[in-house]
Amino acid sequence: MLVVMQSHATEPQIRAVCERIESLGLKAHPIPGALRTAIGITGNKGALDLGVLESLPGVIECIPVSKPYKLVSRDVKEEDTILRIPTPSGDVLFGGKHVGLVGGPCAVETEEQCFTTAEGVKKAGVKLFRGGAYKPRTSPYSFQGLGEDGLKILAQVRKHYGLGIITEAIDNESLDLVEEYADVIQIGARNMQNFSLLKRAGRAKKPILLKRGMSATLDEFLMAAEYVLSEGNYNVMLCERGVRTFADHSRNTLDLTIIPAVKKRSHLPILVDPSHGTGKRHKVLPLSRAAAAVGADGLLIEVHHAPDQALSDGMQSILPTELAELVDEVRQIAAVLHREVN
Amino acid sequence: MLVVMQSHATEPQIRAVCERIESLGLKAHPIPGALRTAIGITGNKGALDLGVLESLPGVIECIPVSKPYKLVSRDVKEEDTILRIPTPSGDVLFGGKHVGLVGGPCAVETEEQCFTTAEGVKKAGVKLFRGGAYKPRTSPYSFQGLGEDGLKILAQVRKHYGLGIITEAIDNESLDLVEEYADVIQIGARNMQNFSLLKRAGRAKKPILLKRGMSATLDEFLMAAEYVLSEGNYNVMLCERGVRTFADHSRNTLDLTIIPAVKKRSHLPILVDPSHGTGKRHKVLPLSRAAAAVGADGLLIEVHHAPDQALSDGMQSILPTELAELVDEVRQIAAVLHREVN
Amino acid sequence: MLVVMQSHATEPQIRAVCERIESLGLKAHPIPGALRTAIGITGNKGALDLGVLESLPGVIECIPVSKPYKLVSRDVKEEDTILRIPTPSGDVLFGGKHVGLVGGPCAVETEEQCFTTAEGVKKAGVKLFRGGAYKPRTSPYSFQGLGEDGLKILAQVRKHYGLGIITEAIDNESLDLVEEYADVIQIGARNMQNFSLLKRAGRAKKPILLKRGMSATLDEFLMAAEYVLSEGNYNVMLCERGVRTFADHSRNTLDLTIIPAVKKRSHLPILVDPSHGTGKRHKVLPLSRAAAAVGADGLLIEVHHAPDQALSDGMQSILPTELAELVDEVRQIAAVLHREVN
Amino acid sequence: MLVVMQSHATEPQIRAVCERIESLGLKAHPIPGALRTAIGITGNKGALDLGVLESLPGVIECIPVSKPYKLVSRDVKEEDTILRIPTPSGDVLFGGKHVGLVGGPCAVETEEQCFTTAEGVKKAGVKLFRGGAYKPRTSPYSFQGLGEDGLKILAQVRKHYGLGIITEAIDNESLDLVEEYADVIQIGARNMQNFSLLKRAGRAKKPILLKRGMSATLDEFLMAAEYVLSEGNYNVMLCERGVRTFADHSRNTLDLTIIPAVKKRSHLPILVDPSHGTGKRHKVLPLSRAAAAVGADGLLIEVHHAPDQALSDGMQSILPTELAELVDEVRQIAAVLHREVN
Repeated sequence: MLVVMQSHATEPQIRAVCERIESLGLKAHPIPGALRTAIGITGNKGALDLGVLESLPGVIECIPVSKPYKLVSRDVKEEDTILRIPTPSGDVLFGGKHVGLVGGPCAVETEEQCFTTAEGVKKAGVKLFRGGAYKPRTSPYSFQGLGEDGLKILAQVRKHYGLGIITEAIDNESLDLVEEYADVIQIGARNMQNFSLLKRAGRAKKPILLKRGMSATLDEFLMAAEYVLSEGNYNVMLCERGVRTFADHSRNTLDLTIIPAVKKRSHLPILVDPSHGTGKRHKVLPLSRAAAAVGADGLLIEVHHAPDQALSDGMQSILPTELAELVDEVRQIAAVLHREVN
Repeated sequence: MLVVMQSHATEPQIRAVCERIESLGLKAHPIPGALRTAIGITGNKGALDLGVLESLPGVIECIPVSKPYKLVSRDVKEEDTILRIPTPSGDVLFGGKHVGLVGGPCAVETEEQCFTTAEGVKKAGVKLFRGGAYKPRTSPYSFQGLGEDGLKILAQVRKHYGLGIITEAIDNESLDLVEEYADVIQIGARNMQNFSLLKRAGRAKKPILLKRGMSATLDEFLMAAEYVLSEGNYNVMLCERGVRTFADHSRNTLDLTIIPAVKKRSHLPILVDPSHGTGKRHKVLPLSRAAAAVGADGLLIEVHHAPDQALSDGMQSILPTELAELVDEVRQIAAVLHREVN
Repeated sequence: MLVVMQSHATEPQIRAVCERIESLGLKAHPIPGALRTAIGITGNKGALDLGVLESLPGVIECIPVSKPYKLVSRDVKEEDTILRIPTPSGDVLFGGKHVGLVGGPCAVETEEQCFTTAEGVKKAGVKLFRGGAYKPRTSPYSFQGLGEDGLKILAQVRKHYGLGIITEAIDNESLDLVEEYADVIQIGARNMQNFSLLKRAGRAKKPILLKRGMSATLDEFLMAAEYVLSEGNYNVMLCERGVRTFADHSRNTLDLTIIPAVKKRSHLPILVDPSHGTGKRHKVLPLSRAAAAVGADGLLIEVHHAPDQALSDGMQSILPTELAELVDEVRQIAAVLHREVN
Repeated sequence: MLVVMQSHATEPQIRAVCERIESLGLKAHPIPGALRTAIGITGNKGALDLGVLESLPGVIECIPVSKPYKLVSRDVKEEDTILRIPTPSGDVLFGGKHVGLVGGPCAVETEEQCFTTAEGVKKAGVKLFRGGAYKPRTSPYSFQGLGEDGLKILAQVRKHYGLGIITEAIDNESLDLVEEYADVIQIGARNMQNFSLLKRAGRAKKPILLKRGMSATLDEFLMAAEYVLSEGNYNVMLCERGVRTFADHSRNTLDLTIIPAVKKRSHLPILVDPSHGTGKRHKVLPLSRAAAAVGADGLLIEVHHAPDQALSDGMQSILPTELAELVDEVRQIAAVLHREVN
């Protein structure tokens, strides 16, 4: 934290701020400038909320300096974390030089729908299948997912097609079940700061895919992951899925600049979901290529065998045949970065 | 939903879109314009996701027209809902010509802190006390609240000072307890789209205070309330607490224009939280006045007897003596609108 | 500027950064913390772009500390600037305890329209008339204003109704003319960073009303004003008119928190334009009250005698009779703040 | 425009709205739904501002349907526009299957700086040189560019290195000079809605590079281009350079989803500026690759031979040697899309 004094601040005011800092067991470092004095603070372990210094006489502003995350930070672990997800068809790796792929429908609707889509996903060379059994929907009158019946269908997909399963948990109850059925537990964007759920995910035995909240800053995103790691689960993948801005030409604004930003700060792998990120089918392929080109560690693609009959998010789902083309182009682009798609 | 065709769309394409609409059991209303044709759709009860029509040949865009909310809408109930919260010191009313006040610390820290603050709150003429026993914090290393011990302190505040209690529930488990101890159950901004929690709140026997999510649109905000009402709990108050924008001069951008916007669409009362809304102590008084002036049905003010020692959000808390001044000015402004503060 | 080093930064890296700073004629103040070192910099007069230090080995981030504005800052002038605008009906004051009012149509359309509206404006007790002769419009096919003919109509309004005139200049050519005809020269939101125009405004002999850009931060807004002052024109009023956010329930998000933020940093008066700020007629009155309540130094209100026939922005214009009601309520609210409306 | 009536709207209210529409010479198409009636409007040529219908009794909302742009639209010209910029080293093409490259410093500082950088730019295979002689800077105390002296240096670069020149005009006066010296005239983000300048650009004899404003919607961006085309200059390239959002991990949020969105609506080529778009040197390469992968028609890259001594934007400039690597990777990625870099 850096405390910036007003230019008119008096010597006694500056001294009082320093004394207040020292009284909290911290160290004050005054830096006298031509116009004003700033006071650096060291020794804060993160538990103290120093913003209150802003209300002391003569202070104009407090600027946070230290980043609050620890376990997710490259300060603690310099090399990339590589996540290895075992599936019946072999391991899928995310991170390092590995780009992992995930495909499947937004929601699990019927066994037939999942089987048809799974066949296409497998044929495209993708080994991880996504599909929601619990669906967070804006409206209480929209389809809310099949619940455990949906998880059972996913288990059949796993058995018959040899695909690993990623599916979302929306509360502690569903997380218990998802942990049992799935290979990777997804925490959705709307729950990125559902800290109760994050703590439960931190005690899960399965890897976590954590999506960025709709208006989460980089720090908040990494702190949400820190919740999971701090409870003992170090197998966390992040996922950018678009943020909310004034722009109205796509459902969300896919923020690909966060990929290099995460990689500078954290060792965790980060994926991109161009389906939710754009909300429009014709943007999924170009933005998938862009995600691979920017250096994302994986892609999460919505696929449906009959998108215009989907019960949710049909307008952003592509066909299994389009997935195959996408995988092919992504593979070529990853090669430019000397990375391998799996 | 309005389907807009490309200017180059052919007659057969237009016909195909109309047939697709009719095949869904809906009615298509083509509107031929000079440059292009648009097709209105009627008959959708809200269950169908019509965005997928956007991928039919010749379609350039689908524009949603109907609002998805029902029970929260003025279409269903034209007159203002007035919420009456009973407290040992008398009822507090929100809505109609009534402006209700709530004061108290961000977090319940100790009995002494709550008692000292409660005394000031009561002295300022406020009958509802707020304080968090369960605290959603960005960092897992920050103070997370006292849990049930905090609720017991709030029960003491209720008993000794005759104040009604508003406190936050963060998951189904804490909601069970909060329902037992509190007069109003708060759902925080980060949980505005925690639909599992909203459904549980809809089955609670106590009124709900629902805060707007950090990047929630008006429709999403009202749909979150719709979740609660759709489960049978009609006692819901909304609360604007600032949204996330590019602006960096305050913690959030308090969006007071949503007050008249909500009042146009919905019969539910809406409060303003200028403490979280601005994040800075010196902005709480001016924005409280502004909230009263714009027509808010209540105010939620953070008060702490020693803000610079608060365990959370001290920089946005005011002193009990400042609360008294605030109440006085708000009362005068409410009078200009022919409203009463209670 | 504060340079934050990586936790793994070596002693030689830290030393190299300090040496680089000193080589620029500045002073480096290293602050060694438990995890990492930060380096404060003093002596920068604002001409040096220190962000480049971020690319030195071992540096993770550069955090700006000093504010770049000088003449607009309270550091240079502690007391409020009060602007006195002379009109044939007497002076209008903005700032200090004075709240100034301005009313009139978005665009000057005809003499009859201006005269009818001016009569209502005058009757409502408002002494300053606004109306655009040069209209910045999103579409080249929309009405672009009457140009000098419009200015001549405004001169007639001045003569016949005794009202002072505020009107917008959109380039150097129009500014020459506006300077001749108007009492206050308006620089619109879209031109807030048209630095060429700002410099010309800084050499004008008339006061400037500078509107906030649609996505301008507080610092950018004050720096735009600094351009005007730095050329010698100290008579500047700021004006908040809504910013662009994700929120879709109003045309813009009126950011009233900037009023206390500006007042903390700068001595300049700041007005609010609730007409552009909300874009909807039914929100103008409530947000005008809110602006007065938050402490704005003036209001800019769009008034039209027949809003639904206006050539631009009719949907946010109110009737002259509604203006009278607005002035009355604003006056009552200003009184709560011990301020006078004029 | 679609006018949505309240559910409680009466038959006479609906009739009155239809009559008002017909009285404007337009056609009303009422669409009676189960809950409410909507009224489609056809026949508007764009000159009428129909938002005012929102204030008629019984109306709840007006939804715009038609897009206001004409000449920039694919409705008018279906095939891609390909811009051919002649340089002494041969033509550079933008659009269709051609990806054009531009490199050079943010600001023209000295002949030596430009020559050294130009040599590197040329060596990397880039034929267009950028560099600002007129610099729009947030602070009046920052380096404002060399003006015509800068243009003369650029002319020397053209002569000695055979590179075409792109440079920015900031007002009508500088545009006259830029038109004389440059091969392409740039209009910067801050001037995207400086309509006076856009009209002048529309009368220029040289192609225009139009950057997206910091908070411009797709429609506003295309309408700004429409201003230029409507004055007769059809040689316009668009350029995405990042928008302003809450995200604080990069200077701006580069919005790559606008590339496919522009291509769906307009025939004009669109470039990407990843230097301003991210503001950080380490993000320029990954985002350049992403821009090529998403389908951008060109790249604008800031290059400086000694970035940490640059007078502006050094922290986002890359070295000439890094440019060569960037060009190489972009070329490989363009090949995946069957496009050619030139």
